[in-house]
Amino acid sequence: MRIVNVPLGGRSYSIKIDGGLLDRLGEECQSLKLGKRCALMTDSNVGRLYAARAEASLRQAGFEPKTITVPAGEKSKSLRQFEACCNQLAAHRLERKSFIVALGGGVVGDLAGYTAASYLRGLPFVQVPTSLLAQVDSSVGGKVAVNLKAGKNLVGAFYQPKLVLCDLDTLKTLPPRELRAGLSEVVKYGIIYDAKLFARLEEQMPRLLKLNLTLLGEAIARSCEIKAEVVGQDETESGLRAILNFGHTVGHALEAITGYGTYLHGEAISIGQVVAARISQELLGLPAEDVRRIARLLKRAGLPTELALSPADYRRCLAAMQLDKKVSGGEVKFVLAKKLGEVVWGQNVPAACLERALQGGK
Amino acid sequence: MRIVNVPLGGRSYSIKIDGGLLDRLGEECQSLKLGKRCALMTDSNVGRLYAARAEASLRQAGFEPKTITVPAGEKSKSLRQFEACCNQLAAHRLERKSFIVALGGGVVGDLAGYTAASYLRGLPFVQVPTSLLAQVDSSVGGKVAVNLKAGKNLVGAFYQPKLVLCDLDTLKTLPPRELRAGLSEVVKYGIIYDAKLFARLEEQMPRLLKLNLTLLGEAIARSCEIKAEVVGQDETESGLRAILNFGHTVGHALEAITGYGTYLHGEAISIGQVVAARISQELLGLPAEDVRRIARLLKRAGLPTELALSPADYRRCLAAMQLDKKVSGGEVKFVLAKKLGEVVWGQNVPAACLERALQGGK
Repeated sequence: MRIVNVPLGGRSYSIKIDGGLLDRLGEECQSLKLGKRCALMTDSNVGRLYAARAEASLRQAGFEPKTITVPAGEKSKSLRQFEACCNQLAAHRLERKSFIVALGGGVVGDLAGYTAASYLRGLPFVQVPTSLLAQVDSSVGGKVAVNLKAGKNLVGAFYQPKLVLCDLDTLKTLPPRELRAGLSEVVKYGIIYDAKLFARLEEQMPRLLKLNLTLLGEAIARSCEIKAEVVGQDETESGLRAILNFGHTVGHALEAITGYGTYLHGEAISIGQVVAARISQELLGLPAEDVRRIARLLKRAGLPTELALSPADYRRCLAAMQLDKKVSGGEVKFVLAKKLGEVVWGQNVPAACLERALQGGK
Repeated sequence: MRIVNVPLGGRSYSIKIDGGLLDRLGEECQSLKLGKRCALMTDSNVGRLYAARAEASLRQAGFEPKTITVPAGEKSKSLRQFEACCNQLAAHRLERKSFIVALGGGVVGDLAGYTAASYLRGLPFVQVPTSLLAQVDSSVGGKVAVNLKAGKNLVGAFYQPKLVLCDLDTLKTLPPRELRAGLSEVVKYGIIYDAKLFARLEEQMPRLLKLNLTLLGEAIARSCEIKAEVVGQDETESGLRAILNFGHTVGHALEAITGYGTYLHGEAISIGQVVAARISQELLGLPAEDVRRIARLLKRAGLPTELALSPADYRRCLAAMQLDKKVSGGEVKFVLAKKLGEVVWGQNVPAACLERALQGGK
């Protein structure tokens, strides 16, 4: 088993990465000194596959789980669904020492995390991410949120889990498209922090796509390590943590203007990373060869990398960027790469440069 | 001007108490190094009286306020209203450095505080409490929340303001019933922490009710000092902070079973304090004379102190207590007084004793 520690003082926690962890959920929770009652939050897809096993493990360890299932998909990251979940926690009489287990991908983790952060002003929670994206990104670092019509993740909290269990076996049932979307974030870690990881991904991509769990476990652990290092230095995104948003400014805007659900998050971020790489070339002198390597690796992961926007869509995309949480003084700030493995944040991008990059770097 | 500091490390802040503070709101905000854009959240009653002056002060200091007005009353402490407010913040393009000013009583402070805690995962906020209850209680200590159908304050956060401005002049427009309700919490501080304050209140009650602002300023400052001391030692209510809930276990349940709005919070807490005093007499030997003094002082403040419950209401009241956030392992815990100025928390109360106390101590 690989263990990554997220160093956050009194709120530190471990990420455990291994096969077979789902059946050890109850046992792992026992060491956390929590109340007996808990809620197992999951979605209709993941719940069908894994809720019974997770529940059985919790019961066997002496807990009293109540399963709450939300419809699969980004639409469940709404305040309406949040309210419905809170009402169920009240009906199940959860107390302050009770806890919430999030079993699912990023949507479940975000919704369950914000619910845990808010119900009774905060309950302990445990993440069991079942998608690659959630394992390498959304379950680590304590950012939880739901969406508003006006934009993604606009309502949420910084709220750390007590434990994260990444069961590699759950990746076997992940739709291939979602595996690819998760790899988009893994590639990101290479670009922003670790050129060697990037090179390793270039070499291993075919095996990763074929679900080599040993290599995936390594890539997940390294991704979590990088995220933990960054978050440990800047929990609430006042500086360094912004580098995790490489490719996300454009990515989030694309998700918003196409309606959440057209692109998976990792797919939108794939396009966003290529756009950010092109801007980096123009503004920071990122070598053209590195821009090509980034686009090529994402393409080999089966991800979209290009997008031709109509003038109307371009304007909608710009407006959506204005709503990004990283906006300051009305200016859209970008994370840009100086070279593979090193980025800078808070970069202003002239409108003309942004437009060229969005239109395909022509 | 009286200034009370709330000692919470990096999240420390000041409570300023004086007349005329509303017109200095903008100036006071200037020293906090915030963005220009802000939201002034208020309700239909307070907004009519004071929003224009608060807005003018903010504008004069160079800020760009957008006023958000919610209907007056406890019903606005809902997730529906919370969502509407978040949507307005998005429409007004608030950024992470933008801030929220809460202008109003406890309802506005709680709703605006939870909105500030959640929008973009947390915006700075400033409290301008205009009711006595909010000045001595809800604006201090960082507990913010909205209600669910299942109970009061079930969804919220611990989230500290950057500054609290208590303008004594706003008490002049406070309905007398709400002034009395605020005094209920002031009496509570005497019971739980300061027998001298209690004795002073016995002496000054007629003048406090006649709106003697000097004496009210003193009582508010002492109340805030006590709350700040308690909260400084236990921000997230893992122990000591529970003493602030003297009278609240029964009080909250009464509010819940009568439908929020029948009793004002301070009125329900007045009855709850008398019930808790009776239980304290039976279980901890609180002198009968002290029980009488407590009931008498609350009565002299014009507050209700008695309640005869039908058997059906008694059962509903018990069920509502089970939902209290301070419940642990299914047992309802009480804060009880050993003597005036000294309480203990986490006390189990036998059902028969609770019933006797609820039925009027007979």
